[in-house]
Amino acid sequence: MLNHSFSPLIDHLIEALCRLPSIGPKSAQRLALHILQHDKSAGETLANALTQSIEQVGQCQHCRTLSETPQCRICASHKRDASLLCIVESPADILAIENTGSFSGLYFVLMGNLSPLDGIGPEELGIGLLEQRFQEGEISEVIIATSATMEGQATAHYIGELAKAANIKASRLAQGVPVGGELEYLDHSTLAHALQERREV
Amino acid sequence: MLNHSFSPLIDHLIEALCRLPSIGPKSAQRLALHILQHDKSAGETLANALTQSIEQVGQCQHCRTLSETPQCRICASHKRDASLLCIVESPADILAIENTGSFSGLYFVLMGNLSPLDGIGPEELGIGLLEQRFQEGEISEVIIATSATMEGQATAHYIGELAKAANIKASRLAQGVPVGGELEYLDHSTLAHALQERREV
Repeated sequence: MLNHSFSPLIDHLIEALCRLPSIGPKSAQRLALHILQHDKSAGETLANALTQSIEQVGQCQHCRTLSETPQCRICASHKRDASLLCIVESPADILAIENTGSFSGLYFVLMGNLSPLDGIGPEELGIGLLEQRFQEGEISEVIIATSATMEGQATAHYIGELAKAANIKASRLAQGVPVGGELEYLDHSTLAHALQERREV
Repeated sequence: MLNHSFSPLIDHLIEALCRLPSIGPKSAQRLALHILQHDKSAGETLANALTQSIEQVGQCQHCRTLSETPQCRICASHKRDASLLCIVESPADILAIENTGSFSGLYFVLMGNLSPLDGIGPEELGIGLLEQRFQEGEISEVIIATSATMEGQATAHYIGELAKAANIKASRLAQGVPVGGELEYLDHSTLAHALQERREV
């Protein structure tokens, strides 16, 4: 057979799309053909947005979130409570917490969790910078909002110890029944947590 | 609230990803953060592949498929049977037919179907170029491989008439039970077609 693929440039575009997570060969082909057949302008916009953001987006010097300015918008704001620090795994978590409208402090982004097997230790998570902020004395409370996974718990425990050592009050997000959750369909360990940490009414 | 979104450049990247089909806001956010956090090189590769292919990929002068050369690889090949022409809707259909390994003729790509309501008439489908190829006298048979949809059928009928007028044998793909298909789960109209066009054994 002469041609079980498209032309080299189209094949290259399909391969490039395939490198993105959750985009398989079939979706990549559909996306590439859609761009080239129907929407070149969307493709151009995407190429420019990629180039620009890859060049300019770095990390906030203060909280390590993704930002094209040396300080992100939240760290630069004077309206936030600088005594309260919420420690999260990723920039997406900041957005999730902001959307609740119930947190007015600052953030610190670990960009991952402790995972010795993957070579991710305290250094990769910016723990040095975090300790420095603990030492500065402005923070009086930290909320550790890592995931409720094994790695997230281990990371939370590690940071909790650091906070204690710096005489800073530390807490974890509450675990329990999700709002609207039906007990029948809840997993055992969540339910066990919810029982253990029951609240008086 | 101060910040229910990321920084402007990141938001722009998310919007650009959202313009692609089947990528919603949540996937776009995940993709953007993945690129910026973990895989900038994949982002660069994609940006370059997009720019290059958008600039250089046009249509084959002969069959209208997407190609960065004036003639696509299939049209340029001397090993193909130039008397047999398969008419398809999109470049992806060429790949599908090539993968069967059972067609050795040339292709013609309509890049769509007749759809008067969307303003797609014969001109948009390159029917002029197709008629020109019919007149050249090299083609002795056309296989019309448009989709088994209303528009596909209408387009097939229209092209069939053109072929007849040029004294060229025209056929449609057979319709019937898919290989491995169980009758129980087949839709009525496919089964009706399969009954009507039954073959002697």
